[in-house]
Amino acid sequence: MTARSRLLLTMGDIAGIGPEILARAWPELLPLCWPIVVGDPGWLGRGLDLARRHAEVRLISRPDEAEPAPHVIPCLAPCNQRLNDVQPGQMSDVAGRAAYEFLCAAIDWVLAGAADGLVTCPLHKEGLKAAGLSHPGHTEILAERTGTSRFGMMLYARGSQLPRGLGVVHVTLHMSLREALKHLSTAAVVDKVRLLDRGLRPLVAQQPRVGVAALNPHASDGGLFGDEEMRILRPAVVQAQRDGIAVTGPWPSDTLFVRARRGEFDGIVAMYHDQGHVPMKLLGGFNAVNVTLGLPFVRTSVAHGTAYDIAGQGLADPAGLIEATQLAALLAAQGVLSTE
Amino acid sequence: MTARSRLLLTMGDIAGIGPEILARAWPELLPLCWPIVVGDPGWLGRGLDLARRHAEVRLISRPDEAEPAPHVIPCLAPCNQRLNDVQPGQMSDVAGRAAYEFLCAAIDWVLAGAADGLVTCPLHKEGLKAAGLSHPGHTEILAERTGTSRFGMMLYARGSQLPRGLGVVHVTLHMSLREALKHLSTAAVVDKVRLLDRGLRPLVAQQPRVGVAALNPHASDGGLFGDEEMRILRPAVVQAQRDGIAVTGPWPSDTLFVRARRGEFDGIVAMYHDQGHVPMKLLGGFNAVNVTLGLPFVRTSVAHGTAYDIAGQGLADPAGLIEATQLAALLAAQGVLSTE
Repeated sequence: MTARSRLLLTMGDIAGIGPEILARAWPELLPLCWPIVVGDPGWLGRGLDLARRHAEVRLISRPDEAEPAPHVIPCLAPCNQRLNDVQPGQMSDVAGRAAYEFLCAAIDWVLAGAADGLVTCPLHKEGLKAAGLSHPGHTEILAERTGTSRFGMMLYARGSQLPRGLGVVHVTLHMSLREALKHLSTAAVVDKVRLLDRGLRPLVAQQPRVGVAALNPHASDGGLFGDEEMRILRPAVVQAQRDGIAVTGPWPSDTLFVRARRGEFDGIVAMYHDQGHVPMKLLGGFNAVNVTLGLPFVRTSVAHGTAYDIAGQGLADPAGLIEATQLAALLAAQGVLSTE
Repeated sequence: MTARSRLLLTMGDIAGIGPEILARAWPELLPLCWPIVVGDPGWLGRGLDLARRHAEVRLISRPDEAEPAPHVIPCLAPCNQRLNDVQPGQMSDVAGRAAYEFLCAAIDWVLAGAADGLVTCPLHKEGLKAAGLSHPGHTEILAERTGTSRFGMMLYARGSQLPRGLGVVHVTLHMSLREALKHLSTAAVVDKVRLLDRGLRPLVAQQPRVGVAALNPHASDGGLFGDEEMRILRPAVVQAQRDGIAVTGPWPSDTLFVRARRGEFDGIVAMYHDQGHVPMKLLGGFNAVNVTLGLPFVRTSVAHGTAYDIAGQGLADPAGLIEATQLAALLAAQGVLSTE
C-alpha cells in the first residue's frame, strides 16, 4: 500500500457551511488521504461544535508538521485578520478576504511540493467582490496564481444512479443562453472533448467513451430544427475522432443522459450550463464534484455553494466534501497532473 | 364503483411497436378501463404472436359492440388498404396512411359520444409525409379534426422517482434553440401556466403548485446572465398569480427539478424542449405520458416513438402504454373535458 496523498482542504467562506462540513467529514477523510485543513482554527472549532464532534484543532505552520488523527485536526492558518465578528450566513468583505487568503496559501504550498493536491470548500462570489477582489471564483484565482491559461471544469458524479461515474464538461458556462449560442464553435467543442477525454483517463479503466450533446431538440432532426449539429458539432466529433478519441454524437440530449445512466458513456460534453447541470443535479445530487482540469496539480471542489441559508445551524451535509476528497485522493495517488 | 371508461386505443404506425405493446399491455388494461383497439386485426395478431399471448381479435363495427375480456380484444378496423406488405421497422406510405385512418376514425367515434377518450400509440412523421399528409404528428391531426385552435401538451410522469407525479408544459417545443429564444414572451408563458394549472387540477388533490423554469443559468443571477427572467418570466409569474394560480419562479432549472422530485411542485413550465425532456426522461423513463390539453375530450399518448429499431423483435416495453391508459381512464372517470 502506498502512502496516503497529502491533501490540503481549504475552508472557503467561513460564514458558509465550510467549517461545519470539514468538521463533520473529518473521520471519513482520514482513511482516504492525509488531510490538512487550511483555514481558521476558531471557526473550525465552531464547526466541530455544530457537528457535535470532539477533536483538537492543532495549529501547524507547515504541511509536513501535520499528524492528522481521528481526534487531531491539523490546521494551517494563513489569515491574520480578526474573524470573530463574521456572522454565519452573512456575506462580508472580511470572510471574502479570508477565503482568498486560505486559497492562495494552499496553492503556494502545493506548488512548493509540500502537498499533493487541493480540495476546496465553497467561497462566496459577493464576499470576494466586497473584499475588492475581481475574481469571480476559485477557478480564476487558481488559474492566475498557477499561471495556467487553458483550463476547464469537469463536473463528476458517482453514486447509486451512476455506479460507474459520469463526467461532464461544458462548452459554455456562466453566460446567458443567448450568449452561449454565439460562443459555440467547432474549435471550442473539440477543445472540450480533448479536455474531457484527458480528465477521464485516470478515472476509467478502458478508453473513455465520450458523447457530445446536441444543441437542438432531437439533435435537429436532420436539420429541421437548427443547423448547429451539422455545421458545428458533427465536424467537431469527426475531428476529435481523428485524434483517436472515442467520441460520438451529437446525440439528442434527452436520451443521451438516460444512456449515460445505463453506462453507455463515461463523459458528456454539454453545450450550455443547464444542459449539463439539470441532469447532473438529478443523477449526482450532493455527491457531484468539480474537478479542475489543466492545472499543474490535482484540485477538486464540492459542486454546491456556501449555503448561507443553512450555515451555522448544524444541518449541512458533508457528502459532497467526502466525495471531492475521495476523488482528489484517487487522482493524486495516480500522480495525475492534469496538464496539457 | 362507477362504470369503467370506454377508451379507444389507436395502433399508430403498424411498422412500429404499436401492435406489440397493445398485445403485451392488454391484460393490464382491462382493470383500468373498457378498452377497444382501433387498428388492423392482422397486425394485432402479429403483435400477440410477438408477445407470446393468446387472445381472439374480434372485429367489431361500432364501439358499443365491444366486449373486451382477457382473451377477447375488440378491434375497430377502419382501414381498407392492404397492409400485408408493410415490413416491421420500415417506414412506408401505406403504414403512414393507415395510422392516419385509425386516428381519424377514433376521433370521430369519440366526438360522436361513442367513447370517452383516446389513447394513442406512436406514429411515424416520415410515414405521414410519405402518404402525402402534411401534419407533423398526432396533435395537429387532433386539432384540425376537432376544430381546436388553442391546445397544448403536458408531459406527465409518475413512478418511483416521482411518487406524486409531475406535469411539464413547454413554452416552445419543436424548433431550434435559437428560434425558441425568439418565441418566448410574457403572454406565451402566462398561457402555458394557465394550461398547466388546468391540466393538473384533476390530478392533484390540492391547488396545483406550478414552478416556472428560468431560461438562463442561475436564473440569470440577478441579471448577470441575460435579462429574460426580469423582462419576460417574472412579469408572467406575477400576472398568473393575479389570476389566483399558485405559481412561483422563475427558478434555476437545475435545482427546480430536484425540488420537484422532493415533491415541492406539481407542475413545471419549461422554456424549451430539452429543458423539460432531459429531466423527465431521467425521472419518468418509459412511464412518461403526453396529455393533450385543450381538446374537447381526453387524450393521452405514450411519450416514446415508433422504435423502428426494435419493432417486430418482441422486445418492446408496454409500460408507457399502460401508464397512458391509466391516466386517460383517471381523467375520463372524472368527466374531465380539458377545454378552455
